[in-house]
Parts: sequence; C-alpha cells; structure tokens
Amino acid sequence: MKIIRYVEELRQELKTHRCNKKVISFVPTMGYLHEGHLSLVSYAKNNSDVCVVSVFVNPTQFGPNEDFNHYPRDEERDIKLLDKENCDYVFIPEISEIYSEDFSTFVLEKKFSKILEGEFRPAHFEGVTTIVTKLFNIVQPDFAVFGQKDAQQALIIQKMVKDLNIPVQIEVRPIVREVDGLAMSSRNIYLSKEERKEATILYRSLLYGKSLIERNEIDVDLIKEKIKDFIKQSNLAKIDYVEIVEKDSFEKVKFLESGKAYFILLAVRIGSTRLIDNFVVQVS
Amino acid sequence: MKIIRYVEELRQELKTHRCNKKVISFVPTMGYLHEGHLSLVSYAKNNSDVCVVSVFVNPTQFGPNEDFNHYPRDEERDIKLLDKENCDYVFIPEISEIYSEDFSTFVLEKKFSKILEGEFRPAHFEGVTTIVTKLFNIVQPDFAVFGQKDAQQALIIQKMVKDLNIPVQIEVRPIVREVDGLAMSSRNIYLSKEERKEATILYRSLLYGKSLIERNEIDVDLIKEKIKDFIKQSNLAKIDYVEIVEKDSFEKVKFLESGKAYFILLAVRIGSTRLIDNFVVQVS
Repeated sequence: MKIIRYVEELRQELKTHRCNKKVISFVPTMGYLHEGHLSLVSYAKNNSDVCVVSVFVNPTQFGPNEDFNHYPRDEERDIKLLDKENCDYVFIPEISEIYSEDFSTFVLEKKFSKILEGEFRPAHFEGVTTIVTKLFNIVQPDFAVFGQKDAQQALIIQKMVKDLNIPVQIEVRPIVREVDGLAMSSRNIYLSKEERKEATILYRSLLYGKSLIERNEIDVDLIKEKIKDFIKQSNLAKIDYVEIVEKDSFEKVKFLESGKAYFILLAVRIGSTRLIDNFVVQVS
Repeated sequence: MKIIRYVEELRQELKTHRCNKKVISFVPTMGYLHEGHLSLVSYAKNNSDVCVVSVFVNPTQFGPNEDFNHYPRDEERDIKLLDKENCDYVFIPEISEIYSEDFSTFVLEKKFSKILEGEFRPAHFEGVTTIVTKLFNIVQPDFAVFGQKDAQQALIIQKMVKDLNIPVQIEVRPIVREVDGLAMSSRNIYLSKEERKEATILYRSLLYGKSLIERNEIDVDLIKEKIKDFIKQSNLAKIDYVEIVEKDSFEKVKFLESGKAYFILLAVRIGSTRLIDNFVVQVS
C-alpha cells in the first residue's frame, strides 16, 4: 500500500492504472477508522482493481462550534488497518494541499441540504459536497463507496452526482453496529463509560419504532412521538430530531403506505456527543 | 461532424476516443456563432484530435429580467459553421436533457462572482460555473477554450478549475473584433443601425484609456473618470461600470505600477443592449 500526500503524486499513480483500464474504487473517510469504514474498503477492494482511500478531516464541513479541533485522529493506526484490507493507496493530504488560502469555490445542493442534519448543521453539507467533488476530481474513480449511517449525506451525494453529471457511480453500504447495536462512529470515542451504555438508546428506539410499524401503526406523528417518549426515558439523551421520510425522496408524509419503504432518522446528543442513526423500514 | 443531442450518446462516442488516447478539446457556447467563437473552435481543432463544441443557451445564467427568451438562436447556421471548422461533435441538448425538474445542485465561486458583472447580474456566474462543471463532466475534455471578451468569466472558470481540482486545462483566446473595433458578440444583432454605429464607443473608449496609460497616467480614479467622460459623449450609451483591475488578481488599485498588467473592463448599454469589452494594458 502506498501512502500519498500530494494531489499530483496521486494523479500520476492513478493515470497509469487508468491507461491500463483498471477499475478504480474510492472510499473517502475522515480517518479514525472503525469496522464501518473497513466494510466499505473491503467492498471497494473486492469490486475493483485499484482501491483508493482518503483520510482527511475536512474543516469546511464543521461548524464554528463543532468538534473539528477535537475530532479523533490516529494516522498510524488508520494506515495499519487499511494495509490489512489490501487497500492500494491511502491519500492523506495536509489541509493546505486541499484548500489554498484564497479558496472560494463551493458545491451546494440546495434542497436536501437544508432539512434534518442541515437544520442543525447549516454549512455542513456544503462542506461535504465541496470536498467530495474535489476528491472525485482528484481520484476520478469508477465508483465510490459511502456508508448508510449518514443516510442524508448519501442521498445528497447521489443527487449531486446526478445533477452535475459527475462520472462516478455511488455505492451505499449498510450500517455496521457494535454487538449491542450502537452504530459504529468515530465519535463514539467521545462517550464516557456511562454514556456509552446509554448510547444504545438510539438503536433501541429505532427497533421500537420499527416494531410499531410492523404492528401496522401508520400515523407518522404518533410513531415519532412514541419514539421520542422512548428516548426520553434516558436522562443523558437529548433529541435533535426524530423523523420519518420516504426512502428515496426524503419527503415527509403523514401516513405510511403499504408497499413503500421509509427511513426512520435520529439525531440524539448523549451528554455532549451528537450521534445519528437510522433504519430503513419496509411497510408490508 | 456528428450532431449529438443526448448526454449518454456523447459519453459513448467520446469514450472510444479516450480509450484510443486521443486529445479531446471542448468549446462551450450559447450558439449564434460569430468569428469570435469560430476562432476558439479553430484553436481547439488545431490542438487536439477530437473537437467538441456545445451549443446550449443556458437558462440558469440569465436573470429574471434578462434576455433568455430573446437570446438569438440559429441552429442550422451554427451547424454549418462548425462543420466548416472541421469540428467533430456538436452537442445540442434540450434544456430537459441538462436540467431535470428537481435539479438542485449548484457550483458557486464566492469571491470574483460578486464584483463587476456579478453586481449587475447577481446569479449569472453561479449559472455559468454550474453549466460549465456539468459540461466538463459530460465531455471530460483535456482542454477547454474560452474567449477573453468575457474576461471575468474566464477568471472565474480558472479559479473554479483550480479550487475544485477539475482535470481540465483552460485556454483563453483573444477577443475578435469587427473591422471598426466592436468586439464580436451574439448580442450585437440586437443593435439598430444607429446603435451599431455608436457601439464602437466601447472600443474607442478603451483605446483612449490605453493611450492615457501609455502617456504615463497612473491615477486609476482619474483614468476611469476620463474614460467615463469619453463614453458620455454618446447619447445612446449608458455606463454600467468602467473598472481597472490587476490582470491576474482582479484586485482594484489606486495607482498603476510599472511592469504590471491591468484590465480595463467596461459594461455599457447601447439603447437596451448591454455590451461588455476589455483591454489588457501593460504598464511600461
């Protein structure tokens, strides 16, 4: 596995593979890798000739009061884990290699970026779509792999790729969970021992919401209220949102319809750690 | 020359050339082609194996009170002219092929888009950077050619390409003028006979400004005032702006410095037709 720190160096390496008609896959990450990331890398590697993973904590997707400075980093560990997955290139640029001082061009999805996560993190998705566009232009992969935990991000990336005719196929892979159901996240490291126990409230409330739907509850406001009440059982949990939307359109509905699939989406703060999670539920 | 109306059709055609390692050039236009456009096409063709020209009047770069509906169009004539230039592919999509009904992703340069043309046409450059990104992603050319008449557009495209790591080289080619100095523009067709005569005021005022600088005038406010007074001699002309900026940075200055190059930039309405023009002046 080669460790690459400069855009031009990576371009040169990949040019050769592209000329040799190799299939190039790409997994963008912010590092501090967990099993969730590694499942994406494994999928990418198994379906391509050349697998590129980027490790870059992207400053533009953090708000001024968010955790950019404290976001966990462990380059050495990340490199070891990627090497074990037979990743071919890990791209670890400095911030200055990605953003020049006079940087001024942004990519903005204007519809889905404003709801849910976008309400709580106003500039977040503009940062995401901008860095992903840049990385796509640098790597020019055949396909790129994203995790379903960030369901809204995956939707927005797919919308961006379609709207801007970006010649990259997007693959979205399932959430990987700890044995007790907590969705893998680099931010789980922030949790105290007590908070870590309580954090399963996200998973458990999703299971509860799913069970309501399976018992033919179709009133969305009612389901949301019941999920919120469930979460409120925890003293450590503070709800940012609980939302139910159509799976493909992310449109809100009043009543679930049989035969359709929906997302239950949560953002909950456990102490000072903000966690998100989601389930896809198919209504029978 | 092949006439292509669909994105996928063009992609398939160009894929073959790309696999055969042909150099692909691209000239994006809004059609109603004149000698200025054709000079870009000629340059593109002479420096590549495969030359692609797009003809698309892009609705997103027109303001609500601008001339989108009246913008001149003559597809048949454009096709004939491009065929004569030995263009290989002309891409003429319908609007619906480029913008889906739910289109929501935009590319925005936030610094240079706000000054000069951007002050008078607030959403213009967002439309330009968005369509150019889309066309670059569709064509994936090795290089693309733009005209110097739209100097600010050329600057913004170059900034966008650098900021977003777009793998396309940008070439900017000189303004082509009518025999009396009027810069070629599709919008010149709007001018009445009388207005057409008066329209040379842009070129003549640029010559005048240049002569002031050559006679060692370095006070920018004074030069601007004198150029404005020159233009005001015409009863038909209304000035949107006269500006002098550093050539590469587009920064305003108070005094010209020897050894440096500057743009004199004009936007002037002749009757109801808005024209732009510019000179590069090297200070000795």
